[in-house]
Amino acid sequence: MTRQSFVVDTSASPHALLRPLPLQGVTIRDRFWAPRIATNTQVTLPSQYAHCEETERIANFRRAAGTEAGDFVGLFFNDSDVYKWLEAVGWNDAISDSPGLSIIRDKVVADIVAAQRTDGYLNSYFTKERSDDRWTNFDLHEMYCAGHFFQAAIAIYRTSGARTALDAACKMADHIDATFGPASDGKRPITDGHPEVELALVELYRVTKEQRYLTLADFMVSVRGANQLGNQKFDNLYYQDHKPYRDLHDVVGHAVRMLYLAAGATDLWLETGEPALKAAIDAQWQNLTQKRMYVSGGVGSRWHGEAIGDDYELPNPTAYTETCAAIASVMWNWRLLQGTGDAKYADLMEWTLYNGVMPGLSVSGNEYFYQNPLENDGTHRRSAWFGCACCPPNVARLLAQLGSYVASVDSQSLWIHTYMQGDIDAAGSGLDAAVSVTTEYPWDNTVRITVTRGGQWTLRARVPSWASGATVTVGGVRQNAEPNTYVALRRAWQVGDEVVLVFPMQPRLIMAHPSVINNNGRVAVARGPLLYCIEQVDQSMPVASLRIDPRTQWAEATGPVALGAHTLLHAKGYSTSTPEDALYAPWRHDAGQPVRLTLVPYHLWANRAAGAMTVWIPLA
Amino acid sequence: MTRQSFVVDTSASPHALLRPLPLQGVTIRDRFWAPRIATNTQVTLPSQYAHCEETERIANFRRAAGTEAGDFVGLFFNDSDVYKWLEAVGWNDAISDSPGLSIIRDKVVADIVAAQRTDGYLNSYFTKERSDDRWTNFDLHEMYCAGHFFQAAIAIYRTSGARTALDAACKMADHIDATFGPASDGKRPITDGHPEVELALVELYRVTKEQRYLTLADFMVSVRGANQLGNQKFDNLYYQDHKPYRDLHDVVGHAVRMLYLAAGATDLWLETGEPALKAAIDAQWQNLTQKRMYVSGGVGSRWHGEAIGDDYELPNPTAYTETCAAIASVMWNWRLLQGTGDAKYADLMEWTLYNGVMPGLSVSGNEYFYQNPLENDGTHRRSAWFGCACCPPNVARLLAQLGSYVASVDSQSLWIHTYMQGDIDAAGSGLDAAVSVTTEYPWDNTVRITVTRGGQWTLRARVPSWASGATVTVGGVRQNAEPNTYVALRRAWQVGDEVVLVFPMQPRLIMAHPSVINNNGRVAVARGPLLYCIEQVDQSMPVASLRIDPRTQWAEATGPVALGAHTLLHAKGYSTSTPEDALYAPWRHDAGQPVRLTLVPYHLWANRAAGAMTVWIPLA
Repeated sequence: MTRQSFVVDTSASPHALLRPLPLQGVTIRDRFWAPRIATNTQVTLPSQYAHCEETERIANFRRAAGTEAGDFVGLFFNDSDVYKWLEAVGWNDAISDSPGLSIIRDKVVADIVAAQRTDGYLNSYFTKERSDDRWTNFDLHEMYCAGHFFQAAIAIYRTSGARTALDAACKMADHIDATFGPASDGKRPITDGHPEVELALVELYRVTKEQRYLTLADFMVSVRGANQLGNQKFDNLYYQDHKPYRDLHDVVGHAVRMLYLAAGATDLWLETGEPALKAAIDAQWQNLTQKRMYVSGGVGSRWHGEAIGDDYELPNPTAYTETCAAIASVMWNWRLLQGTGDAKYADLMEWTLYNGVMPGLSVSGNEYFYQNPLENDGTHRRSAWFGCACCPPNVARLLAQLGSYVASVDSQSLWIHTYMQGDIDAAGSGLDAAVSVTTEYPWDNTVRITVTRGGQWTLRARVPSWASGATVTVGGVRQNAEPNTYVALRRAWQVGDEVVLVFPMQPRLIMAHPSVINNNGRVAVARGPLLYCIEQVDQSMPVASLRIDPRTQWAEATGPVALGAHTLLHAKGYSTSTPEDALYAPWRHDAGQPVRLTLVPYHLWANRAAGAMTVWIPLA
Repeated sequence: MTRQSFVVDTSASPHALLRPLPLQGVTIRDRFWAPRIATNTQVTLPSQYAHCEETERIANFRRAAGTEAGDFVGLFFNDSDVYKWLEAVGWNDAISDSPGLSIIRDKVVADIVAAQRTDGYLNSYFTKERSDDRWTNFDLHEMYCAGHFFQAAIAIYRTSGARTALDAACKMADHIDATFGPASDGKRPITDGHPEVELALVELYRVTKEQRYLTLADFMVSVRGANQLGNQKFDNLYYQDHKPYRDLHDVVGHAVRMLYLAAGATDLWLETGEPALKAAIDAQWQNLTQKRMYVSGGVGSRWHGEAIGDDYELPNPTAYTETCAAIASVMWNWRLLQGTGDAKYADLMEWTLYNGVMPGLSVSGNEYFYQNPLENDGTHRRSAWFGCACCPPNVARLLAQLGSYVASVDSQSLWIHTYMQGDIDAAGSGLDAAVSVTTEYPWDNTVRITVTRGGQWTLRARVPSWASGATVTVGGVRQNAEPNTYVALRRAWQVGDEVVLVFPMQPRLIMAHPSVINNNGRVAVARGPLLYCIEQVDQSMPVASLRIDPRTQWAEATGPVALGAHTLLHAKGYSTSTPEDALYAPWRHDAGQPVRLTLVPYHLWANRAAGAMTVWIPLA
């Protein structure tokens, strides 16, 4: 039997409505994602390894192990970048044949494991020079690094069967468990400064069945709000430590920490079903989506504290919207989807993937955005690496595990959450069903699902929230499909049976709540699951001068192939200017010069000549 | 003969086209400024004195003098707040009879002078505990404080004749002159971190005729760009020390420092006439007004470094636009006006006074803005005082000296720069001419100038830049008047002769250069010399939801008397909203609900219930 690698293994989670498909169950063969995934394997992962070596991130482990001379170099949480890269290589192993990467993987695992102390402690920053300082400052990411190590170890174990990293992870987890926990158990009841270990501990529980890890995850979530952090640089809210998690009804503070924490709490809920936990999670999600999320799905309004802003505080040029925060949102929504089967989570997951995460990666696969502003003067460009390099390997691991987000099962049904041309085989999840998907989604409106292994089961296919007028045709009968639901088609499927979904994809204008003051008088443009923008390179007049006619006739065109097959939009607009380039001038009724606007998918911006860009376009 | 107190005494400046009127030459009796000036005397100055005592700003001098126990308290430049307050009290003495303030003034002068060291050095921060540190860090405002002391001393001398402070100022200036200057003279060639002393030294030269002070001012301007600051927290550009001043062709860095420096350089040019200096000043002014100035006249786009931004970087909610920067702009434009007689400087001075400076002061006269954003959610409110309290006494001294900005003379002409009901008598400036002005400007469009002492001279009356269709009527003959010029009327004036100026004041819409991306699709509203805004307290719907119909019929009304007589504007607008308060929703053609917008003068905002405000209103 081939190995079945689950990314987030809710197969046995008592409160998960859905069970995951293993990575091997989904083959992606489309023109959007397949090239991106191939680039991930061929360009992104090798180049990230080179960066990790060049910046001495891996050497730090060898130095901690004493196998190489020298002191620790870099930021105190640099281990985590290596772990995330390693996790990416782990998942990648399930979907591609890259022996080179597997060799490096094993070498890096050996370097890491050699740095582990005999008591299980593992962190290259706190091992040699600073070994006396370990576990003294919980804003220095020791738990965070541990969490990423657990995730990497699990990925390698699930895809290759190799236990070296997993055993080391369990040793570290055992060390943490022995040290931290309720004071009533004689342990240290500390709050971790950067959540991440929570979801990793739940997954470690899932892979090992060690109840202690789940209990520890619950402790980590539950200890918050008791002022047990200490040594902190920011206020309690920044760390989501200003109140108990179950009383936290909005998303606050550092965006990535908030969303990793919410994802971890959701993982916990999938195991425990605790209503109070779920009520807090639901309130947080509601607050995020109704008050504090960018139209791109990005999260984080402030550079200061990399923070989520107040309600409706969503400035565009200064948006922080860290790539990692969008990834964390995908992770959170995925867990909520597995728990509930509610299409709204799949919808936001897909939207955030296309419009919140993918802008963070160049088409070339080797340059990254840390921040993803929705408006820029052309000075914001991707970098090959960062001193704080959390985002690059985070994108890499998401792309490597992408197949696992395509579909789920329950005992009766195959759920398809997002559409990518390719094959879905649910056998590895225990449902004897398989289909093939033919589509040019997200560019084209038609998705054709062909049964490749039949039987009595239900096909549940998601209808996106934006797909007004969607239809589903099966057995020659066409019916309307309600947006933001799953259409459920139960029958005795025969091989070759076909289901055709049509999701109308005319360009649409989006307005923001009027309290988002900076978006007033402006619209964003979307088509299907993609957000669009105007980028200087495509326009005849300065982006800053452009306005859009909301009654425009739309024209669609194929964009430059260098950016991958994609659809451009053309709209009627106007360019405004002032006489003699004056800074201020009397407003004129005839200020607009008609122009043809060209809109490109937002995730593709900044892949060509540097220039201004805006998502929110002033109305003419 | 009554004393004649000049504020900026260019009477004998060889390169000044205009000569100033003494404060006593102008009597303001209008409904806009007269109440503000009375409040300054009765509320602002006494309450600021109380703040200076409560915060131990004045005690610091007594402690430095050894007449009171205790250490220095507060910020290292707190002396300057006392000096600015003292300067205000000085000028106030010329325009009002406030014996109480005069008594305090003399007491404070005595405290200050007692703190002066025998070598002339005067700075309460560097006298006792830190006497060894004096003149070691030129980012600690010793020169800046000295400059403000010089200005205060000059004000007191010019208005009261008392020499105590002036003599102390000269001792300090002599000490500086003996210590700092070209290395070739055996002196220390340092760059001062916070310009201000330059203009004060030129004025000290004007009042004492000591050439050394002018030479020292020239040195202070000329040393910049030679990397002689040291100890700096920011980069050279922040301090305008990245290049020689004469090569500086844009306005950069810390806004107040930049504009005080430009004002000082202009003072220098008024004395020296140096073309290279004037060329740099002209380029800076051009850059400011064409690229880097808010529509309010405010300057400073960034909170970080209290800095002027890049070209077209003029965000509204995060505008810094420090009240002091607007005051510095008024000071700079006044000096340029005296040098050139060019109406554009008077125009910007007046505009900045109404719309850049006055928002910084509450109608009550005892609360202040440090920052003046052009858009706010209602959380930005005035404070009674600040830890860094530069703005409050700066507003106070400007109001006390306001009369001096109304008019100037040359050998043949009386120049009227701005219109306030009252009397102008040029006798103290050597021109045998006097007029009386009757007007409700800035609210009403008509200005009536009646000759009260005749003779053969030219009346030069400014026509504001916005006054398209302006007319001037004299001797029953009406003619058109060109905006942004002075109409020149030369004749043998008889007492009772009348000149009537009419400046059309219909509300007008202003657009910004399209490169100011945040103002695209928005307009600002002005009427006469006043910028307007919409404030929540006056609206039926949330400010964030409001849009303005650019083709509106305007209605004017009288606003609530508690804010002083003023004109409100009503316009047709729309309120947009999203269904069910969604964060994002499909744009609808019919999204606007018609509403009646109420606009209030921007300088009056935040004097009533807290609420959102915006100057730039989205177009419907």
